[in-house]
Amino acid sequence: MSQMIPGKFITLEGIDGAGKSTHLLWLESLLEGMGKNIVATHEPGGTPLGERLRSILLDSRQTMHPETEALLMFAARREHLDKLILPALTKGEWVISDRFTDASFAYQGGGRGLSEDKLDGLEHWVQGEFQPDLTFYFDVTSELGRKRLNNRGDGVESIDRFEKEEGEFFDRVRESYLKRARKFSHRIHIIDSSQSLESIRLKLKDIILTIC
Amino acid sequence: MSQMIPGKFITLEGIDGAGKSTHLLWLESLLEGMGKNIVATHEPGGTPLGERLRSILLDSRQTMHPETEALLMFAARREHLDKLILPALTKGEWVISDRFTDASFAYQGGGRGLSEDKLDGLEHWVQGEFQPDLTFYFDVTSELGRKRLNNRGDGVESIDRFEKEEGEFFDRVRESYLKRARKFSHRIHIIDSSQSLESIRLKLKDIILTIC
Repeated sequence: MSQMIPGKFITLEGIDGAGKSTHLLWLESLLEGMGKNIVATHEPGGTPLGERLRSILLDSRQTMHPETEALLMFAARREHLDKLILPALTKGEWVISDRFTDASFAYQGGGRGLSEDKLDGLEHWVQGEFQPDLTFYFDVTSELGRKRLNNRGDGVESIDRFEKEEGEFFDRVRESYLKRARKFSHRIHIIDSSQSLESIRLKLKDIILTIC
Repeated sequence: MSQMIPGKFITLEGIDGAGKSTHLLWLESLLEGMGKNIVATHEPGGTPLGERLRSILLDSRQTMHPETEALLMFAARREHLDKLILPALTKGEWVISDRFTDASFAYQGGGRGLSEDKLDGLEHWVQGEFQPDLTFYFDVTSELGRKRLNNRGDGVESIDRFEKEEGEFFDRVRESYLKRARKFSHRIHIIDSSQSLESIRLKLKDIILTIC
């Protein structure tokens, strides 16, 4: 984020089962303990319109062209920026989002096969030069991610349009995340999510302190 | 359309009350009488996903940023091209659409104030160089358009997110349509919609014959 805006924007990335939700809750209380006002949110969604689009995007009976999917993700993101993220940052709040634009490069790029050029174009159209201050990419293999999801006990009925994809899809998503993390290593920190919770938390805290 | 694709793509543009629906039905029977297979469609919509997006876009209780609106219009259009327009044209059918991309320049550009550059960017992202073979822009003043709509007897309850705009909004939409028609005069034909039905039909037929 620009130094003109007092808040900080942190994003958490990774495939389902990488532990984002657990780490988000912990980061929230860590930062609140440091006196920050935190807004926790997620994508796609985070606004009333975003949630309507989320329900379409995750609807396992809804088919759509990969470019349509990307346009809908960025439509929800445009609204998210306008109604929630930018107003909160302007007030000096810290925003933690479970997924942001890196997810579009991973899922619609790596997963669905859209070119980086096309995604760069949409990213620039929607957010100009705006980027998170810090991104944690929680890295797990598609096998471990799937295993953790299954252990949650979610039934078959709750499987969404992305979860129903094969392991190879998530292998490509993971590869794209890793590629992007190496490309933007000043912002994106790769966290090996197979480590113990304790060792992950130590690492998160160390990195958070660099932007406080 | 490219000469490689056997069908023809005709779009009808104008504000509500300009007479598009009436003229679409007549064009459909004219062309069927000439032995063409016709697919009549509309935007936003024309596919199951497009109709879901249409119901969000027209929902008078739903607020959204003008750029979100543009992204949703083009998301519906991407799907429309993929699922309906391009397959029909490829089979040699003629597609007549009640609104297409010119409407985004008029409504999201002129009406909502998005720059031509931003809309050019989305247009190119979604459709490359693809353009209608022929476009009829039915020109009426916002006053006449509104008067005709009211005469239809639609109740207040059915007023959608665009219809609830003031006359000045539709004046700007009209100005943008006229500007675009002058810019792309090889493709867009301005039809004075205050003329008699008979005289409009004669004109439409003359123009249609140039692409048969």
